[in-house]
Order: sequence, then structure tokens, then C-alpha cells
Amino acid sequence: MVADIQHVETLGAMLGEKAVMFGDDAASYEDGARYDKGRASFVVRPATTKEMSQAVSYCVRHGIHIIPQGGNTGVVAASTPDSSGTQAVISIDRLARSLNLDVDNRSVAVDAGFLLSDLNAALETEGLFFPIDLGADPRLGGMLSTNTGGARFLKYGDARKNTLGMKVVLADAEGTILDFGRELRKNNTGIDWKQIFIGTSGSLGIITECVLNLERRPRQSAAALLVPSSAGHVMSLLRAMETRAGGYLTAFEGMSANAIKATLHHIPSLRNPFENREIPDYVILAELTRTWDLRDNEQTLDSVLETVLAEMWELQEAPLADALFGSAHEMWALRHAISEGVRQMGKLVAFDLAFRRGDVMTFCERMKAEIPARFPGVAVCDFGHIGDGGVHFNLVADRASGVAADASMEGQLRDWVYDVVVNDFDGSFSGEHAIGRRNQAYYDKFTPAVLKHMARELKTITSPAGLGAVRFG
Amino acid sequence: MVADIQHVETLGAMLGEKAVMFGDDAASYEDGARYDKGRASFVVRPATTKEMSQAVSYCVRHGIHIIPQGGNTGVVAASTPDSSGTQAVISIDRLARSLNLDVDNRSVAVDAGFLLSDLNAALETEGLFFPIDLGADPRLGGMLSTNTGGARFLKYGDARKNTLGMKVVLADAEGTILDFGRELRKNNTGIDWKQIFIGTSGSLGIITECVLNLERRPRQSAAALLVPSSAGHVMSLLRAMETRAGGYLTAFEGMSANAIKATLHHIPSLRNPFENREIPDYVILAELTRTWDLRDNEQTLDSVLETVLAEMWELQEAPLADALFGSAHEMWALRHAISEGVRQMGKLVAFDLAFRRGDVMTFCERMKAEIPARFPGVAVCDFGHIGDGGVHFNLVADRASGVAADASMEGQLRDWVYDVVVNDFDGSFSGEHAIGRRNQAYYDKFTPAVLKHMARELKTITSPAGLGAVRFG
Repeated sequence: MVADIQHVETLGAMLGEKAVMFGDDAASYEDGARYDKGRASFVVRPATTKEMSQAVSYCVRHGIHIIPQGGNTGVVAASTPDSSGTQAVISIDRLARSLNLDVDNRSVAVDAGFLLSDLNAALETEGLFFPIDLGADPRLGGMLSTNTGGARFLKYGDARKNTLGMKVVLADAEGTILDFGRELRKNNTGIDWKQIFIGTSGSLGIITECVLNLERRPRQSAAALLVPSSAGHVMSLLRAMETRAGGYLTAFEGMSANAIKATLHHIPSLRNPFENREIPDYVILAELTRTWDLRDNEQTLDSVLETVLAEMWELQEAPLADALFGSAHEMWALRHAISEGVRQMGKLVAFDLAFRRGDVMTFCERMKAEIPARFPGVAVCDFGHIGDGGVHFNLVADRASGVAADASMEGQLRDWVYDVVVNDFDGSFSGEHAIGRRNQAYYDKFTPAVLKHMARELKTITSPAGLGAVRFG
Repeated sequence: MVADIQHVETLGAMLGEKAVMFGDDAASYEDGARYDKGRASFVVRPATTKEMSQAVSYCVRHGIHIIPQGGNTGVVAASTPDSSGTQAVISIDRLARSLNLDVDNRSVAVDAGFLLSDLNAALETEGLFFPIDLGADPRLGGMLSTNTGGARFLKYGDARKNTLGMKVVLADAEGTILDFGRELRKNNTGIDWKQIFIGTSGSLGIITECVLNLERRPRQSAAALLVPSSAGHVMSLLRAMETRAGGYLTAFEGMSANAIKATLHHIPSLRNPFENREIPDYVILAELTRTWDLRDNEQTLDSVLETVLAEMWELQEAPLADALFGSAHEMWALRHAISEGVRQMGKLVAFDLAFRRGDVMTFCERMKAEIPARFPGVAVCDFGHIGDGGVHFNLVADRASGVAADASMEGQLRDWVYDVVVNDFDGSFSGEHAIGRRNQAYYDKFTPAVLKHMARELKTITSPAGLGAVRFG
């Protein structure tokens, strides 16, 4: 398209050749990590906030709709273009130059295009890390735009709780730069504007720089696989662990038997921690950590964990059928492999749900009871972050079952599950993946009209040209 | 005033007699906790969110400006009427009926008019508490509107980090009720609207109900007064404590010699922990806690603290001149008495500042060097939350000094200190007290025009009638 080439040339002259891509070179920016294929008009890759402002201003002035993109690891199609071929992807992948660590403040001011892994590698010598623990390796701006949570939320919270400041470029004719860049933990001097850019999928502005809270890396850890006597005892186990191992507890993750079996079956390199025993109905991965090296006369964390479990046993606080100690590394390898394991089992319909913590097991039990009759051949392979109420509720139409797992069936399944989650449990239909094209319809369905109206107005006062793959208004 | 009586009678008929007050009965709602005297037209005290909506709607339709009020313990004049006698105070003090504890979820859904102390009393039997530790006893809605921090921020964060949900009444003709009331820790389904009502002094809406995160109450604690070899070693001490006592550290509070001396002098009931020794230039109150009871074969926290200090000493990580163990209760009594102690010393000009943690001591040292020449007779009696960068920077014109501590001198002092804080240190001129009439001028001065414009627009889409004592736009 001629118009495209003109834009590419003008932007290339403005920002440098490396900053603009199109055609085959741009293919990796067009498709989502797991779902969706799109087509971009072209891709712009600014290397500084100022260049971002120039690129955005150019696109806005030429009526080109912008899709901001981070590491493109999201799963709701929030960062990829639609199929029209008219949208421009603006990637932050070259916006990864500046990293200023403040050890005293336990914070880092960093370009938003850094990969999580690169940030953590840079922090390692100081014994610090950005404590959002994910299977994927996103870029920081994408993490903030999604408000990612992860497996250690229970201890460290989500991206929002660990963001001190940011710079944002707005989609207006000027490409206005907003600077909330201060490295302060306390600052109550008006509206905390940065909060509205967190978790909104880049639809109100593009985060180009951020100031993040850091935590001390653990120097000791212990983990165990705990088997509650029944699903009903998961909560009493969590309560007892929080009381008896409070400051140490960094994870309390749940895995269903179906999820574990699928994973062990499809990823044979994993060791089965249960060996010849039957896989229990539900297993908890509990992890304790400390930030210091083991001291003389100090119990190891393995020993603390054993003591805590013995106390619970003695007081019958949280009936346990079994507890397996062993390599924390192996336990986490199993836990982190589940996403991939269930995917290999058949057609996966994945849900990212969240509940009051006490409702997690109730919901899963209800689903297990109702699904066989409603959707025969569909297996429930759930796992989740019980400590924060998050559930990766995976439904798999097993290849072996011969179920017609088509789009119509997936739609029915989604409609029904989300209705139960939102209407019966007051739960969330997107716990930590935020909103993208893939769940836009459910945002539209479950969001009150007054909030959509407010969202439309908020877009007008931030990025009036419109931005991103999502409509909140 | 005739108009007033009509309003009082109509609102009384609508909400009940107890719900409306005026004249002398309303005096306690008109004056601030420490500063400012105002005059209200009348006071309305709704007992439910629905009544709040009715009251707000009535006032908006009759063109009466509303000042929302919580416990009226704030110090920036954000919750009291001006002197015109035309504004209505709407207090949440009767909105304190419903309290629903969810032990599994470690959360409580509670009317916003509860006092912090009443909430914590109700949680005590379950071993839980709302972990914002303050000298004052505010109502919950006021805490959220101020985004209070407190002395254990380092461990638990501020009100924002501990808010899961809320209901808000907007100042429009309908008294629109917004419900963000879900008890979820993870929920990324669009714009997180509740964030804009936190810390904005009730200027965008009135928080009537809230869902709060709770924490387990500590069952063990240890505290010590640490004397760093110099102000420059405060940060290395904090860093070493965070590494070596990570999960235990709940407070790291600093107190200057001047603050301690003033407090001990004016509040003779306090024991002097330094007895016959000279009061050191700067003292840190460090506190460790655990959520469980002491186990056999487990070091006490006093012993952990001693071990940690011995390690630091051996490795020369954080040169300490002295360390005093003893009653944590007495140490906190001294710490919490400072506000009152310095007040009794003379004319107090109090600042609620926040910095990058590494800048706290640098700033205080600079002030101590420059103030004697610029403002002779003014003593620096600072104390603060070093662990989160917060400083209660108290300047006292000692009665004995004979300094003319008038409004003009206070204005000059404020202008100069805030300029240094914001321009030279990128610090905050309101760390945890938020904005009210008393610091409105500094909001106006330090806030970029683009953000004021956005604030004006945001008010239009939330509470178009205007609300509260503050103007952000």
C-alpha cells in the first residue's frame, strides 16, 4: 500500500531505519503468543520516551490507530493488531536502554521495554529482584498494563503494588508525555493518575518508563507438596500456614489431579513426585523463604515446615492426608509445566478466574459436579494461586474423547462458566490477564453502563484518539 | 437562616431527626482536629449508603456545597467547612452498622464510618487486624480518602494497598452509587476506578463502604533503639536489617535528639531509655514481629535481633555506636508521644514529607545546617518512617527563643522548605496527610497544568457538583 510506504519512510526518517518495520519482517509483531493472528500496517519501535511521543503524535495526526505492544506474551489479544491491516503496532522492545538502580531505596527506574528476565539479571549482584514471578518473560510496560500477579502474589502483591512511578505517552495530537516518575513510596499530593494506566491494556496511554519497588532475593527456601484430607480442608490449611509460618510463606499454589496427570503424561522429562502412589485429588505446593543465610542454631526452613505441619497435625487444625518433602526446584518445575501439559492434552479452553479465597474450592467442586452432564468429554484441569484466590481454570476436550470442541461449544462453555463465576460467586472473569479482544465481549456484558460511560469520558481526557485493542467505553 | 431551617427540616423528615444537626450541637463537626475553625450551615449524618445518596442528591439539587467528613482527625483541613456558614458537612459517623468478616479471605466488608479502633476490636478474637498503625483513631472512609500510611508501612503498606473494594456516592443530582465492592485480591477487568477515590480527600466521591485486607496479628515482638555511628550510616543499617531480618522487620523509625529531648522534657511520665547518658543525635526504633507463638528450640526475637546486630558489627556492615534493648511498649510510647511533645515546646510548623529513602538523612542534615542562619531560634525536631522515606519534619520556634513565630514567618518557612523538598530532592510535600485547605496552595504551585486540567475533567465525570474542601482542577 502506497500510504503505508509513505508512513514507513517518514517515520524512518524521523526515528531511524531500525525503528520502523513492515511486511514479513514485522510478522512476529502481528500474532499473539498463543492465540490470534493479525495484520499490521507497519510496526514502530521507538527507543526513548521522546521518540514514542513523536511516533504517537505522527500516527494520531494521520488517523492511524495504534496498538501498543510489550513482550507480546499476553493471552487475551490486547497487544496485537486486528486483521484489517490498517493498525500500527508500536512496540516498546527497543525502549530498553536506561536502568537506574537505587539500592538504598530498593527501587529501580527503568525503561518499560526491558524484559523481566533482563531486569532481574541486572539486579542479581545486589541481591534484589522485581518480585512478580511469572511463567512468561514479558516486558515491564506490558506487565504494568496487564497488572500481572503470578505465583508469589501472596507475599509480594501484583504489578500495581510494586509500581512507584511511571512515564506515559498519551494518544493525542501532541503525543503528550505525563511524568509520574518519582521514586517515592509515600506521596499523597492529589489524584494518583498512574493507577488508571495500570491494568488497562494500554488503552489510556503507553507506559514508556517505570519506577519499580524491589525486594531482597531469598537466600533459603523450603517447599512441600501437601495433600489436604479433602477439598474442604484447603482453607484451614492455608489459614494455619499463614498463622504458623506468617513471614516466611511465599506461595500456596493448588494443583488438581487432572492437571498433574496431564502434565506428567505429556511432559515425560518431569519426575513424578508421587512415584508409585496414586496422584491425590488436590495438591498444595507450599513454599517458605528467608532473605538471609542459615545461621548457627537456626532451624532450617525444611525443619520449620515440618514443625509447622506437626503442630497442625497435633491440633487437628488442618487435616492432612500426606506431605511430601523434596526438591523445591522439581516441585516448581511441575507447577510451571501445567499450562503446557494441559495444552497438549487436547483442545484447551482456559479461564483466568479469581474468587474470594474461600470460594475457590467450592467453585471447582461445583464445576466438577456439573460439567460432565453439561459438557460430556470435557475434563477440568484446574490449578491456581489459592493464596490470593486466583484460579487458572482449564477445561480440556480430551482428544481421545472425540468431543467436537469447536468455536460454538467454546462459546457456550465460556458463557456458562463466566455467568456462574460473576453472578453466583461475585468472582472475576479476568484475574490477572486483563482485558483484550478475546474477552472484550465479557467486559461489555458484565460492566455496568455507568462505568462504561465514565470510561468513555476518561479516554477523552487521556487518549482522545483512541489506543489499543480494547474498548472500555 | 431560614433556608437552613428548611433544609434541616426536609432532611430530618427524609433521614430521621438524629441524621441532621445544626447550631451549637454541630460545633464538633466544624473545627479541625488541630487547626482551623469553620462554620457549617448544617450537618447530615446518613446511616446507610442509600441515605448518603439521598442526602447528597438533596444538597446537589439545592446547590449546597458538601464537605464529607470521617473521624475529623486529619491535619490539613480536608474535612471541615470554610468560614462562610454555607457549606453542609456530611459525616459518616453513623454509617457504622455493618461489619462482615471473611476469615478465609482475610478481609472485612465494613461500613466506612467505623473507627479504626472499633474495627480492630471486632477482629481481635480472630487474631486479625487492619494493619495501618496510626497515632490517631480515624474512621475508615477517612483513612481511604487520605491514603494513610503510618508506622508499619514498611511491612504492610498504606490504605491503598489494603483496599480490595468500596462503595462510593457521587456528587451529582442522582447521588449515584458506584459499587466496587468485591472481596477479590485479583481482578483486572477494566479500569480500577476505586483507585481515584483513594487519597483524594473526598473530592471525587464519598466512600461509604469498603472491603479491606486484613493481616494476622503478631504474637511475638522485639524492639531495640539503635544508634548509628553517624547519620550517613542509617541507610546501611536499614539495608542490613532488611537483608538479615527480612520477613520479621515491621518498623524502622527514626527520631532526632531534639525530638526525643522535647518529648521527654514535656511529657515527664515517659521513661528516658538513655537514663544518664547523653541523648544520641539520631536513634532508630527497629521492631521485629512474628505471627506465631514462640516454639521450643526457636530463638526469641530479642535473641534474633541481638544475633543480627552482632553479625552487622562483625562484618562492619552498619557501624553502630550503641544498641538498647528493653520494653518495646516503652519505646513505642516515646515514639508515639513525639507529636505531642514537640507541640508543647513552642510554635510548631509541621511538615509531612517523603523522599527516596536514601535522601531522608541528607535532607535533614542539610536543613539542620541551613536553618540556624535563615531562621534563627527555630529548632529542627524531625522524626519519621525511614523504612518508607516518610519524614515528619517538625520545626519549632522555641518559646524560650523569643522568635516572632507569626503567620508571615510560617509562610516563608513553608515556601522555602517545600521548594527544597520538591525541587532539590524530587520529594513529596504531603507524604501521608493528603491535600486539604492547609496545603492547597502548594498543590496549586507544584502540580503541572496538564494534570490540573485532567483533574477538572475527572471531577466533571464523577462529582460534577463539586465536593469537599479541595480543588484539584
